[in-house]
Amino acid sequence: MSEVLDAARRAKVAAAALAPLPRSTKDAALLAMADALVASSARILEANARDVAAGREAGTAEGLLDRLALTESRIAAMADGLRHVATLPDPVGEVVRGSTLPNGLEIRQLRVPLGVVGIVYEARPNVTADAAGLCVKSGNAVLLRGSASAYASNTAIVDVLSAAATGLPEHSIQLVPGTDRSSVQELMRARGLVDVLIPRGGAGLIQSVVAESQVPVIETGVGNCTVYVDESADLEKAVAIVVDAKTSRPSVCNAAETLLVHAAAADAFLPLAVKALKDKGVTLHADARAASHDPSAVPVTEEDWAAEYLSLDLAVGVVDSLDDAVAHIRRWGSGHTEAIVTRDVDEARRFVKGLDSAAVMINASTRFTDGGEFGFGAEIGISTQKLHARGPMGLPELTSTTYVVTGDGHIRG
Amino acid sequence: MSEVLDAARRAKVAAAALAPLPRSTKDAALLAMADALVASSARILEANARDVAAGREAGTAEGLLDRLALTESRIAAMADGLRHVATLPDPVGEVVRGSTLPNGLEIRQLRVPLGVVGIVYEARPNVTADAAGLCVKSGNAVLLRGSASAYASNTAIVDVLSAAATGLPEHSIQLVPGTDRSSVQELMRARGLVDVLIPRGGAGLIQSVVAESQVPVIETGVGNCTVYVDESADLEKAVAIVVDAKTSRPSVCNAAETLLVHAAAADAFLPLAVKALKDKGVTLHADARAASHDPSAVPVTEEDWAAEYLSLDLAVGVVDSLDDAVAHIRRWGSGHTEAIVTRDVDEARRFVKGLDSAAVMINASTRFTDGGEFGFGAEIGISTQKLHARGPMGLPELTSTTYVVTGDGHIRG
Repeated sequence: MSEVLDAARRAKVAAAALAPLPRSTKDAALLAMADALVASSARILEANARDVAAGREAGTAEGLLDRLALTESRIAAMADGLRHVATLPDPVGEVVRGSTLPNGLEIRQLRVPLGVVGIVYEARPNVTADAAGLCVKSGNAVLLRGSASAYASNTAIVDVLSAAATGLPEHSIQLVPGTDRSSVQELMRARGLVDVLIPRGGAGLIQSVVAESQVPVIETGVGNCTVYVDESADLEKAVAIVVDAKTSRPSVCNAAETLLVHAAAADAFLPLAVKALKDKGVTLHADARAASHDPSAVPVTEEDWAAEYLSLDLAVGVVDSLDDAVAHIRRWGSGHTEAIVTRDVDEARRFVKGLDSAAVMINASTRFTDGGEFGFGAEIGISTQKLHARGPMGLPELTSTTYVVTGDGHIRG
Repeated sequence: MSEVLDAARRAKVAAAALAPLPRSTKDAALLAMADALVASSARILEANARDVAAGREAGTAEGLLDRLALTESRIAAMADGLRHVATLPDPVGEVVRGSTLPNGLEIRQLRVPLGVVGIVYEARPNVTADAAGLCVKSGNAVLLRGSASAYASNTAIVDVLSAAATGLPEHSIQLVPGTDRSSVQELMRARGLVDVLIPRGGAGLIQSVVAESQVPVIETGVGNCTVYVDESADLEKAVAIVVDAKTSRPSVCNAAETLLVHAAAADAFLPLAVKALKDKGVTLHADARAASHDPSAVPVTEEDWAAEYLSLDLAVGVVDSLDDAVAHIRRWGSGHTEAIVTRDVDEARRFVKGLDSAAVMINASTRFTDGGEFGFGAEIGISTQKLHARGPMGLPELTSTTYVVTGDGHIRG
């Protein structure tokens, strides 16, 4: 018998008991979990030190080791995250739609938990606490499948959270046992036990889960985002938006990877933009017309147009029209976030209507596509698929719905 | 090059042009399609007659031939369906959520079409027109993959609809070329071209699509629905509801397949129910306690508890409590629709909270789980999965959403 499927079965039992719990019980558990994280810092840090030491020995890059490493203050931030989730509205029970039908039947569509949520993620132990908190609040049992390289840390965190969450059903929060790839594959085949899998991390992980999973998947996070500077753009604002979108945090999915400039604005805009971007250390990969404003630019290739650099690189091109910009984005973009800088209402409207992306910014940086920035209070990821959830996913996106219909003996006859 | 993938590529191009069309254009196309169906009845009936003749020659059962066969009045009903869809609100552009953030960013979440919708269905040519109409109205291009045994009929219908829909982009409505199983498999692998696959039909078809598809799927229709008669039930209403749920249309997914009766109500209720059900020709598959009220009952087996009979058979059991009924349904049900007959508010509430089904009826027949009955105006199917849509799916369920965020030069910094 598979240990992973056993865990999934326990999660399914827990989910049935967790779903009807009132908000007060869930919030009390979240606060207790937060306190326990802080109180157990020494134990968690000890486990984390083992993961970090093993990673260093294995030659893991320093950037990844930094994501893996916990500190007292990072643990405190995880605890604060749980306390914040406790303050958010409970999505469960919200009436999404409702009406009284002509025959007198009263119909309500209510939010209910999804059931068992599986999260597959990289070596960031803070995700363990964040995801557990969001799942508990939304009434879901959670199966956490973190990176093998964070297994000791995740084990300690889940032990602490589970022990603290005394008001919740046993096995509401579980780490998926095992560290080899087969445990992910078993999760992907656990149809009927796991209601949804959410892969968080690199494109390779996400694509393999999306392609292989028999369990429904919510695809997250790959972002090849474009900023389009229209003919009528306010150039100063356009420069600020492009610089912000590219450089304020290049490693995240809502950072811009491509800049397209209307030919009529290129001569005025590009000299300003090139200077500002180069001041921030950005390397431009430019088409011929854009390169005329930056002699140091690298010639752009098809790989560049398709790339999610996650670095201080930017593909830059000049287009002859908004329609050409839209066509470019439809061909090369990942459907995450695009921005237009324009003073023309009609052009903004045409840009929105022409695209097929999770978010479109008008005169704002692509970096705003984020659950926190959108006011959701928390985020489980950013969906780049069209089914179920699209864009930043907060607590409501971790729910399904059910119809409750009340009559007084109604039959169809 | 695959003909199916070629069709999917054409659909993707059509979808981009279809998405921004205003309601007036789509409604005009729907009305023209309706008129064309009626005007081309002779051609459609001729094609249909070939399908029916081939089916009869192949020894197809009369029930299936009846579903396959078209008549003037059935074509008129298909046309009326399209005209009715034209009267429904356009889901595209609806603002689902919106707010102005503290920093002044204006955020709107808008409904947008899914893109390319694939429908895989059985030998019912009316589905061809119904599905095409719902997809056009919701701004989606559609790939129709009907049964091989209805290929001539579907070809004629799609030709007529496409030729009539002059205001829509070319290839908005396409029949998937080919009649062998490989065309379904190609659809299932067309990730990036097809946004969602909706299988409609028997459990075998649905399960194979769900298990194999790399394209996101909406699972529809398998219904092992239960009616639970509580201790406090109004017995007369309970009998009417059970008879309606079982016999008003046994072949559909919202028909009841199981009856559970509280032990304290069994002696009073079961004699009435058994008589009423047997008057309608129902065969009971009963546990020992229920069988004491029906000497002709067949002993119930685990297969019966799990069965979606779609016939005048009913599994019947006596339970000692509402909790036992809930546990039974959680074990054996398909999560479609359950009904409770009770006069006790607390018990109704516990029943709703204990279950995990797409719909729960309180003192009403399971047969009401239906897009038409729910007032949606039309239905593309009934989802029994939890992601994206659950229960009857109308036009809004054929949409995704996008966030449109407007600022005046906002950056995160």
